[in-house]
Amino acid sequence: MEAIRWQDNALLLLDQTKLPLEEVWTRHTSYTTVIPAIRALVVRGAPAIGVAAGYACCLAALEFHGRPDYPQRMEQARRELAASRPTAVNLFWALDRMARAFDACVGDPGALLEEAKAIHREDIEMNKAMGEFGAEVVPPNARILTHCNAGALATGGYGTALGVIRAAHSQGKVAMVYADETRPLLQGSRLTAYELVKDGIPVTVQTDGMAASLMAAGQVDLVVVGCDRMAANGDFANKIGTYGLAVLAHYHGVPFYTALPSSTVDLSIPDGSGIVIEQRAGDEVTHFAGHQVAPAEAAVYNPAFDVTPHHLLTGVITEKGVIRPPFQVNLARLFG
Amino acid sequence: MEAIRWQDNALLLLDQTKLPLEEVWTRHTSYTTVIPAIRALVVRGAPAIGVAAGYACCLAALEFHGRPDYPQRMEQARRELAASRPTAVNLFWALDRMARAFDACVGDPGALLEEAKAIHREDIEMNKAMGEFGAEVVPPNARILTHCNAGALATGGYGTALGVIRAAHSQGKVAMVYADETRPLLQGSRLTAYELVKDGIPVTVQTDGMAASLMAAGQVDLVVVGCDRMAANGDFANKIGTYGLAVLAHYHGVPFYTALPSSTVDLSIPDGSGIVIEQRAGDEVTHFAGHQVAPAEAAVYNPAFDVTPHHLLTGVITEKGVIRPPFQVNLARLFG
Repeated sequence: MEAIRWQDNALLLLDQTKLPLEEVWTRHTSYTTVIPAIRALVVRGAPAIGVAAGYACCLAALEFHGRPDYPQRMEQARRELAASRPTAVNLFWALDRMARAFDACVGDPGALLEEAKAIHREDIEMNKAMGEFGAEVVPPNARILTHCNAGALATGGYGTALGVIRAAHSQGKVAMVYADETRPLLQGSRLTAYELVKDGIPVTVQTDGMAASLMAAGQVDLVVVGCDRMAANGDFANKIGTYGLAVLAHYHGVPFYTALPSSTVDLSIPDGSGIVIEQRAGDEVTHFAGHQVAPAEAAVYNPAFDVTPHHLLTGVITEKGVIRPPFQVNLARLFG
Repeated sequence: MEAIRWQDNALLLLDQTKLPLEEVWTRHTSYTTVIPAIRALVVRGAPAIGVAAGYACCLAALEFHGRPDYPQRMEQARRELAASRPTAVNLFWALDRMARAFDACVGDPGALLEEAKAIHREDIEMNKAMGEFGAEVVPPNARILTHCNAGALATGGYGTALGVIRAAHSQGKVAMVYADETRPLLQGSRLTAYELVKDGIPVTVQTDGMAASLMAAGQVDLVVVGCDRMAANGDFANKIGTYGLAVLAHYHGVPFYTALPSSTVDLSIPDGSGIVIEQRAGDEVTHFAGHQVAPAEAAVYNPAFDVTPHHLLTGVITEKGVIRPPFQVNLARLFG
């Protein structure tokens, strides 16, 4: 499964707001339409946003190369893309990489496209590597709980948390995947369940408030989630609800892992308090498919992410291996 | 605010599935239509179900009195009503009370109606008493988090958890009420926010997965929820998600209370393992207002309630006072 394609000098994005019922691709020939697509979650998931941003730079290069202000236009494009969403660090990582490539190739659009394709290809390779490492921590007949979507749709392809699940499933180890529906935008029921059903992996959907009772009943052997940004000490931002799930896993003695490529690690931030948390519009909570479900006079709290402190983590699954505590030391050793 | 009325020999129920946008009353002249109304959550909330069941017995009495098989018909009606939902004990408590009244008054429909009205009136009185006791545990400028709807709509009127909040608000103590939206059926955003907005009490709606980050940010001083059945040791069933919230409150050192009338206490059950948990249809999770949000091939886990063990409770707010640990001893002393 893939959600991002480069074809005939255009960026194609599978519109994830319309899944699971409709598979509609949007076509972008200017970086300016990629920005609202990122904001509206047509493409979402930290690694996927990074991949899309790389290709968006290529669209800008195709548009502006040959102009006298080409470098300035490219810098402006990168700045606008960087302002689309604040939390996932992969966006900034990919834009930095494209900026360095621009300098190295003196703005050659073909070379920039090779760089964007490399970001895409390497992301899939990292996912597959972390899938292999992650599968080692999955016990036989595992009942695995996950939150939001950290799958092929959230990455260049294959997935981080779902990459681990895919690799474990291919080894015959997965008895059931419990997918939190993940309010407000239901990436769990809409996207994770869709991916797993397509791959023939057994999946049960439940509301976010049901995870605790599954754990209390001894029905969860392992939790694995994705990550939008990890600080130097192992604190990490991920979809809202992840932190509560980590507390519940800790209380019930259930191992709790996050899976991420090195592009999600931000060693420039000492701990989670430095991660900017995006606040999104209240109508994501109060409206569903045009239906109003709360009185207009009620206030709304709608952060897109929360921060899980490192001490609630059992391990961090990366393309270079599974990192155990002390995370500060071991993250620096692998990614410093 | 009220959601249950007896008028012209008919039971009127405010259809809670249509709130907050439409205020539609359904009219019942036979107990047989009350049963599907309870099942479909037109009327819901443990005390409210008990009140409605009392009036439903009156509808049966009006229909069957004078017939030779009147007592058998009434017993059959009570049996059918009892089978409508399994978890809330107030239903069985109210039906037992109507059965005893039937024997005492030899089936006089007028006397039965007085009994049903007494159940209704006493429920409101108990709510107001527990509101006064509960307000004492609310600190000044309190930020109170609640789950589902334990308000006027869930009771004869006034509310259990929301009764405590109403009483505390009338004393000027409530800075903010955080209402979990409460998936799958959104009783928090649809009903609790609606009640509080109507009463001018400040309310913020958030998804269930956001409660943990509110607690981590120090924004919750107190959690108070309702109850569908409390066992002799203080273990209690309430809307799915309550148990996870109790674990989170425990982890963050936030006081956690449930508010309930004595009709919700079931001393015949030693602990929470004896409480039957209703499993509801999967489409409550996978569909919203006719929109499908999960692939049809995914399995669904949809328990309506979970059980919170007594050791996670700070106190039990009742019409006779606030009960503290040891709950087994103190529940028996007050309600034995």
